[in-house]
Amino acid sequence: MNYYLSKTVRAKFNETITKVMGLLKEEGFGVLTEIDVKKTLKDKLDVNYKPYMILGACNPNLALRAFQSEDKIGTLLPCNVTVIDQGQGNIEVAVMDAKTLMNAIGNPELELLALEVTERMERILTKL
Amino acid sequence: MNYYLSKTVRAKFNETITKVMGLLKEEGFGVLTEIDVKKTLKDKLDVNYKPYMILGACNPNLALRAFQSEDKIGTLLPCNVTVIDQGQGNIEVAVMDAKTLMNAIGNPELELLALEVTERMERILTKL
Repeated sequence: MNYYLSKTVRAKFNETITKVMGLLKEEGFGVLTEIDVKKTLKDKLDVNYKPYMILGACNPNLALRAFQSEDKIGTLLPCNVTVIDQGQGNIEVAVMDAKTLMNAIGNPELELLALEVTERMERILTKL
Repeated sequence: MNYYLSKTVRAKFNETITKVMGLLKEEGFGVLTEIDVKKTLKDKLDVNYKPYMILGACNPNLALRAFQSEDKIGTLLPCNVTVIDQGQGNIEVAVMDAKTLMNAIGNPELELLALEVTERMERILTKL
Protein backbone atom coordinates (compact mmCIF):
# COMPACT_ATOMS: atom_id res chain seq x y z
CA MET A 1 0.00 0.00 0.00
CA ASN A 2 1.34 3.41 -0.94
CA TYR A 3 0.47 5.35 2.19
CA TYR A 4 1.75 8.79 1.24
CA LEU A 5 2.05 11.34 -1.58
CA SER A 6 5.21 13.37 -1.80
CA LYS A 7 7.11 16.00 -3.70
CA THR A 8 10.71 17.15 -3.34
CA VAL A 9 11.58 20.79 -3.95
CA ARG A 10 14.77 22.85 -3.94
CA ALA A 11 14.06 25.20 -1.05
CA LYS A 12 14.77 26.14 2.55
CA PHE A 13 13.25 24.04 5.34
CA ASN A 14 11.55 26.79 7.37
CA GLU A 15 10.34 28.65 4.28
CA THR A 16 8.78 25.43 3.01
CA ILE A 17 6.89 24.95 6.28
CA THR A 18 5.53 28.50 6.01
CA LYS A 19 4.55 27.95 2.38
CA VAL A 20 2.85 24.61 3.14
CA MET A 21 0.86 26.21 5.97
CA GLY A 22 -0.31 28.97 3.63
CA LEU A 23 -1.35 26.48 0.95
CA LEU A 24 -3.17 24.36 3.53
CA LYS A 25 -5.13 27.45 4.59
CA GLU A 26 -6.09 28.17 0.97
CA GLU A 27 -7.52 24.65 0.77
CA GLY A 28 -9.50 25.06 4.02
CA PHE A 29 -7.16 23.20 6.36
CA GLY A 30 -6.08 24.54 9.72
CA VAL A 31 -3.00 23.14 11.44
CA LEU A 32 -4.06 21.67 14.79
CA THR A 33 -0.76 20.10 15.82
CA GLU A 34 2.93 20.61 15.11
CA ILE A 35 5.55 18.03 16.06
CA ASP A 36 9.20 18.96 15.68
CA VAL A 37 10.60 15.43 15.24
CA LYS A 38 14.26 16.50 15.32
CA LYS A 39 13.78 18.39 18.60
CA THR A 40 11.69 15.61 20.15
CA LEU A 41 14.30 12.92 19.37
CA LYS A 42 17.09 15.19 20.67
CA ASP A 43 15.20 15.99 23.89
CA LYS A 44 14.05 12.44 24.62
CA LEU A 45 16.93 10.31 23.33
CA ASP A 46 19.81 12.75 22.70
CA VAL A 47 19.86 11.54 19.11
CA ASN A 48 20.58 13.82 16.14
CA TYR A 49 18.02 13.51 13.36
CA LYS A 50 17.39 15.59 10.26
CA PRO A 51 15.02 18.59 10.40
CA TYR A 52 11.54 17.06 10.22
CA MET A 53 8.19 18.63 11.03
CA ILE A 54 4.80 16.90 11.25
CA LEU A 55 1.87 19.27 10.73
CA GLY A 56 -1.55 17.90 11.72
CA ALA A 57 -3.96 19.40 9.18
CA CYS A 58 -7.73 19.48 9.57
CA ASN A 59 -10.51 20.77 7.35
CA PRO A 60 -13.35 21.17 9.87
CA ASN A 61 -16.20 20.55 7.41
CA LEU A 62 -14.66 17.37 6.02
CA ALA A 63 -13.69 16.22 9.52
CA LEU A 64 -17.24 16.68 10.82
CA ARG A 65 -18.64 14.57 7.98
CA ALA A 66 -16.00 11.92 8.68
CA PHE A 67 -16.88 11.82 12.40
CA GLN A 68 -20.59 11.60 11.56
CA SER A 69 -19.90 8.69 9.23
CA GLU A 70 -17.53 6.76 11.51
CA ASP A 71 -16.72 8.08 14.95
CA LYS A 72 -13.51 6.04 15.45
CA ILE A 73 -11.93 7.87 12.49
CA GLY A 74 -10.26 10.14 15.04
CA THR A 75 -7.68 7.36 15.45
CA LEU A 76 -6.42 8.39 11.96
CA LEU A 77 -6.89 12.18 12.18
CA PRO A 78 -5.68 14.83 11.64
CA CYS A 79 -4.23 14.43 8.16
CA ASN A 80 -0.47 14.67 8.57
CA VAL A 81 1.72 16.74 6.30
CA THR A 82 5.43 16.21 6.89
CA VAL A 83 8.25 18.51 5.83
CA ILE A 84 11.61 16.71 5.72
CA ASP A 85 15.05 18.16 5.09
CA GLN A 86 16.70 15.48 2.93
CA GLY A 87 19.97 17.44 2.71
CA GLN A 88 21.78 19.28 -0.08
CA GLY A 89 18.90 21.75 -0.48
CA ASN A 90 16.26 19.08 -1.05
CA ILE A 91 13.08 19.45 0.98
CA GLU A 92 10.54 16.66 0.74
CA VAL A 93 6.89 17.28 1.58
CA ALA A 94 4.99 14.05 2.21
CA VAL A 95 1.27 13.80 2.97
CA MET A 96 -0.74 10.89 4.33
CA ASP A 97 -2.58 9.36 1.36
CA ALA A 98 -6.08 9.58 2.80
CA LYS A 99 -7.65 7.98 -0.28
CA THR A 100 -5.62 4.77 -0.06
CA LEU A 101 -6.06 4.50 3.71
CA MET A 102 -9.81 5.07 3.61
CA ASN A 103 -10.26 2.65 0.72
CA ALA A 104 -8.60 0.04 2.92
CA ILE A 105 -11.16 0.73 5.67
CA GLY A 106 -14.04 0.07 3.31
CA ASN A 107 -16.58 2.78 4.21
CA PRO A 108 -17.96 4.38 0.98
CA GLU A 109 -18.81 7.73 2.64
CA LEU A 110 -15.28 7.95 4.06
CA GLU A 111 -13.85 7.09 0.65
CA LEU A 112 -15.64 10.09 -0.88
CA LEU A 113 -14.34 12.40 1.84
CA ALA A 114 -10.84 11.01 1.50
CA LEU A 115 -10.94 11.58 -2.25
CA GLU A 116 -11.75 15.24 -1.56
CA VAL A 117 -8.87 15.49 0.94
CA THR A 118 -6.45 13.84 -1.47
CA GLU A 119 -7.45 16.13 -4.36
CA ARG A 120 -6.79 19.17 -2.16
CA MET A 121 -3.46 17.78 -0.98
CA GLU A 122 -2.44 17.03 -4.58
CA ARG A 123 -3.18 20.66 -5.50
CA ILE A 124 -1.00 21.79 -2.60
CA LEU A 125 1.91 19.60 -3.75
CA THR A 126 1.51 20.91 -7.30
CA LYS A 127 1.79 24.50 -6.07
CA LEU A 128 4.99 23.89 -4.11
CA MET B 1 -9.43 -3.50 7.35
CA ASN B 2 -10.01 -3.12 11.08
CA TYR B 3 -8.09 0.07 11.74
CA TYR B 4 -8.59 0.41 15.48
CA LEU B 5 -8.74 -1.48 18.78
CA SER B 6 -11.26 -0.34 21.36
CA LYS B 7 -12.74 -0.93 24.77
CA THR B 8 -15.77 0.65 26.40
CA VAL B 9 -15.78 1.25 30.14
CA ARG B 10 -18.26 2.64 32.66
CA ALA B 11 -16.43 5.74 33.81
CA LYS B 12 -16.20 9.51 33.68
CA PHE B 13 -14.75 11.17 30.56
CA ASN B 14 -12.05 13.34 32.17
CA GLU B 15 -11.01 10.64 34.63
CA THR B 16 -10.60 8.20 31.74
CA ILE B 17 -8.31 10.65 29.91
CA THR B 18 -6.15 10.95 33.03
CA LYS B 19 -6.07 7.18 33.47
CA VAL B 20 -5.17 6.59 29.81
CA MET B 21 -2.33 9.11 30.03
CA GLY B 22 -0.95 7.36 33.11
CA LEU B 23 -1.13 3.95 31.43
CA LEU B 24 0.54 5.33 28.30
CA LYS B 25 3.37 6.62 30.47
CA GLU B 26 3.79 3.18 32.09
CA GLU B 27 4.21 1.70 28.60
CA GLY B 28 6.81 4.31 27.60
CA PHE B 29 4.55 6.63 25.57
CA GLY B 30 4.51 10.38 25.98
CA VAL B 31 1.57 12.41 24.72
CA LEU B 32 2.83 14.88 22.11
CA THR B 33 -0.50 16.27 20.95
CA GLU B 34 -4.00 16.69 22.34
CA ILE B 35 -6.97 17.59 20.14
CA ASP B 36 -10.26 18.42 21.82
CA VAL B 37 -12.58 17.46 18.95
CA LYS B 38 -15.76 18.75 20.62
CA LYS B 39 -14.18 22.16 21.26
CA THR B 40 -12.63 22.35 17.78
CA LEU B 41 -15.93 21.59 16.02
CA LYS B 42 -17.73 24.11 18.26
CA ASP B 43 -15.14 26.83 17.64
CA LYS B 44 -14.81 26.28 13.88
CA LEU B 45 -18.33 25.28 12.85
CA ASP B 46 -20.56 26.08 15.87
CA VAL B 47 -21.61 22.42 15.87
CA ASN B 48 -22.27 20.46 19.06
CA TYR B 49 -20.45 17.12 19.16
CA LYS B 50 -19.92 14.61 21.94
CA PRO B 51 -16.88 14.92 24.24
CA TYR B 52 -14.03 13.44 22.22
CA MET B 53 -10.28 13.74 22.78
CA ILE B 54 -7.48 12.62 20.46
CA LEU B 55 -4.18 11.99 22.27
CA GLY B 56 -1.10 11.67 20.03
CA ALA B 57 1.09 9.08 21.78
CA CYS B 58 4.74 8.49 21.00
CA ASN B 59 7.29 6.05 22.36
CA PRO B 60 10.57 7.76 21.40
CA ASN B 61 12.62 4.56 21.05
CA LEU B 62 10.07 2.84 18.84
CA ALA B 63 9.52 6.05 16.86
CA LEU B 64 13.25 6.45 16.19
CA ARG B 65 13.49 2.91 14.86
CA ALA B 66 10.44 3.55 12.67
CA PHE B 67 11.96 6.76 11.24
CA GLN B 68 15.25 4.94 10.59
CA SER B 69 13.41 2.19 8.74
CA GLU B 70 11.11 4.43 6.70
CA ASP B 71 11.32 8.19 6.99
CA LYS B 72 7.87 8.96 5.56
CA ILE B 73 6.29 7.08 8.48
CA GLY B 74 5.75 10.48 10.11
CA THR B 75 2.69 10.81 7.90
CA LEU B 76 1.09 8.17 10.18
CA LEU B 77 2.56 9.22 13.53
CA PRO B 78 2.00 9.71 16.42
CA CYS B 79 -0.14 6.76 17.42
CA ASN B 80 -3.56 8.18 18.23
CA VAL B 81 -5.54 7.17 21.28
CA THR B 82 -9.08 8.54 21.31
CA VAL B 83 -11.35 8.89 24.33
CA ILE B 84 -15.01 9.19 23.32
CA ASP B 85 -18.02 9.88 25.53
CA GLN B 86 -20.69 7.59 24.04
CA GLY B 87 -23.31 8.75 26.56
CA GLN B 88 -25.08 7.08 29.48
CA GLY B 89 -21.79 6.63 31.34
CA ASN B 90 -20.09 4.72 28.55
CA ILE B 91 -16.60 5.88 27.63
CA GLU B 92 -14.97 4.27 24.63
CA VAL B 93 -11.19 4.27 24.26
CA ALA B 94 -10.11 3.51 20.69
CA VAL B 95 -6.51 3.20 19.51
CA MET B 96 -5.11 3.18 15.98
CA ASP B 97 -4.32 -0.46 15.14
CA ALA B 98 -0.68 0.03 14.23
CA LYS B 99 -0.20 -3.66 13.41
CA THR B 100 -2.90 -3.77 10.75
CA LEU B 101 -1.83 -0.44 9.23
CA MET B 102 1.84 -1.37 9.07
CA ASN B 103 1.09 -4.80 7.64
CA ALA B 104 -0.74 -3.00 4.84
CA ILE B 105 2.38 -0.91 4.14
CA GLY B 106 4.49 -4.03 3.71
CA ASN B 107 7.77 -3.16 5.46
CA PRO B 108 8.87 -6.10 7.69
CA GLU B 109 10.86 -3.90 10.14
CA LEU B 110 7.85 -1.61 10.58
CA GLU B 111 5.63 -4.63 11.12
CA LEU B 112 7.80 -5.73 14.05
CA LEU B 113 7.69 -2.26 15.59
CA ALA B 114 3.95 -2.03 15.06
CA LEU B 115 3.47 -5.40 16.76
CA GLU B 116 5.33 -4.02 19.77
CA VAL B 117 3.14 -0.88 19.79
CA THR B 118 -0.03 -2.91 19.46
CA GLU B 119 0.95 -5.25 22.31
CA ARG B 120 1.54 -2.25 24.57
CA MET B 121 -1.76 -0.66 23.54
CA GLU B 122 -3.60 -3.92 24.17
CA ARG B 123 -2.14 -4.04 27.69
CA ILE B 124 -3.36 -0.47 28.25
CA LEU B 125 -6.88 -1.36 27.13
CA THR B 126 -6.85 -4.43 29.40
CA LYS B 127 -5.95 -2.28 32.41
CA LEU B 128 -8.77 0.21 31.83
